[in-house]
Amino acid sequence: MSSPPCVSMQVQTLINGEFSDCIGVADRGLAYGHGVFETFLVLNGTPVFYTEHLQRLLTGCKRLGIPVDQLPQRLEHDLMQLDYPAGRAVLKLIVTCGSGGRGYLTPNPASPVRILMLSPLPEYPGQPEQGIRARWCQTRLACQPLLSGIKHLNRLEQVLARNEWQDPAIREGLVCDSRGFVVEGTMSNLCFIAGGRFCTPALDQSGVEGIVRNQLLQLAALQGLEVEAGRYTPDDVHSADELFVCNSLIGIWPIVQLGDRSYEWGTYTRRLQSALNQRMVQC
Amino acid sequence: MSSPPCVSMQVQTLINGEFSDCIGVADRGLAYGHGVFETFLVLNGTPVFYTEHLQRLLTGCKRLGIPVDQLPQRLEHDLMQLDYPAGRAVLKLIVTCGSGGRGYLTPNPASPVRILMLSPLPEYPGQPEQGIRARWCQTRLACQPLLSGIKHLNRLEQVLARNEWQDPAIREGLVCDSRGFVVEGTMSNLCFIAGGRFCTPALDQSGVEGIVRNQLLQLAALQGLEVEAGRYTPDDVHSADELFVCNSLIGIWPIVQLGDRSYEWGTYTRRLQSALNQRMVQC
Repeated sequence: MSSPPCVSMQVQTLINGEFSDCIGVADRGLAYGHGVFETFLVLNGTPVFYTEHLQRLLTGCKRLGIPVDQLPQRLEHDLMQLDYPAGRAVLKLIVTCGSGGRGYLTPNPASPVRILMLSPLPEYPGQPEQGIRARWCQTRLACQPLLSGIKHLNRLEQVLARNEWQDPAIREGLVCDSRGFVVEGTMSNLCFIAGGRFCTPALDQSGVEGIVRNQLLQLAALQGLEVEAGRYTPDDVHSADELFVCNSLIGIWPIVQLGDRSYEWGTYTRRLQSALNQRMVQC
Repeated sequence: MSSPPCVSMQVQTLINGEFSDCIGVADRGLAYGHGVFETFLVLNGTPVFYTEHLQRLLTGCKRLGIPVDQLPQRLEHDLMQLDYPAGRAVLKLIVTCGSGGRGYLTPNPASPVRILMLSPLPEYPGQPEQGIRARWCQTRLACQPLLSGIKHLNRLEQVLARNEWQDPAIREGLVCDSRGFVVEGTMSNLCFIAGGRFCTPALDQSGVEGIVRNQLLQLAALQGLEVEAGRYTPDDVHSADELFVCNSLIGIWPIVQLGDRSYEWGTYTRRLQSALNQRMVQC
């Protein structure tokens, strides 16, 4: 049984429950992106919204024909091997279909590979939780309902979108689908408040169904807002009263500048940030 | 300097010019599919259509922001490390963007990773070069012009399409795009002869621009056929006189049964097979 590296906060990597940092070149996760991933905020050794992230992981595995028997139990055991720092950290989890099969045909039985990477939380300078600058991306997401919603490894559209800009002052880019409907940010979901309604793009054709987005749909309803997942154009977003992006690591980042338009870090957003923070520490 | 494993034909794997069979878990090829690949037929130690495959690889790298300086020279050197069997073999080449960068943002500078895998040619029982049975897939390819034509690592659509059937008697499946136009096979390009015209789907929205498909566009023209890359429906394909799929490993496999329709292993196809075989041994 392998032992963890020294306790100061480096990256700890487990592969199928053993400390190791390299995978076989025949892995289908490399060859085809045949796998899924999850990125957790970890607070004092506890992955936040673990149940919800696990659920999305299992949904993704099933959609891609990756067997899930024993997976939750094995992941629980993997988690116990890691040496968690006090405070905040990031846990990235990848589950691939493993190697084998004839070309694209999935092996049967398949031997999925579990990869866990625990690392320090990245620096987010400048209080982005009080407002960021964002931009519109040219890259459009293709409409592929078979792959929408899940967090699979085929992320070239996000790579292309993110590489449209280098300016570190721009903290996120928004992407539309090939029909011109707004979908999400390159690494986040988008939500906005318009006329007291909480709105977020429907994700049936593209995009990732975020854990925090789902939490906010509930929290907004609990706060008495009308809640809507729909089809929105950039103009719908432009005429919003408040807008923000969200994911499990950043929580909520209000957008106070989008292209040459300015927005308030508004009351509805602040209330949702407060409610979300409460939920997160309860995990 | 590492040495090759024993000479009997197993898989030989080189990573950045050294014998090794595992890559770092932080590689962007795994994380996002940020890379490209090529699959070569190797005849007596020579990769067939090497120049054309290399060209497509470089085009794909540039499209994905993977630096290519020194890449052709390094690949030439890698090729010299391998121990080639007599006769036929398969060489798979993957180039990833390596690791690093902040999330989806590509590192600058990037350190691409070259992976070469030399293995025995798979068994193709039953003389498929004389005719195969194929089927229509339900899975539709999304229209994404930014990624069309190149052989990137985001291949989940092919995984989904191929896993629609298990019957080994069915040797290939044909896929349409989300508009309903025919694109290609799950692991091949599709060509057909209709009224003496050589037709193959245009690949500006989806699909991979095959090396052999490109050879055949030239060879068909040299044989005096009208040549057309266009938009075809399944009905256009159904009313063809002859049809076949092609790639670098299989060459040409005529389709003699598609769903419940039968087709001839026809004269135009046989002439193209003959011309292609001649070109391949000249490499």
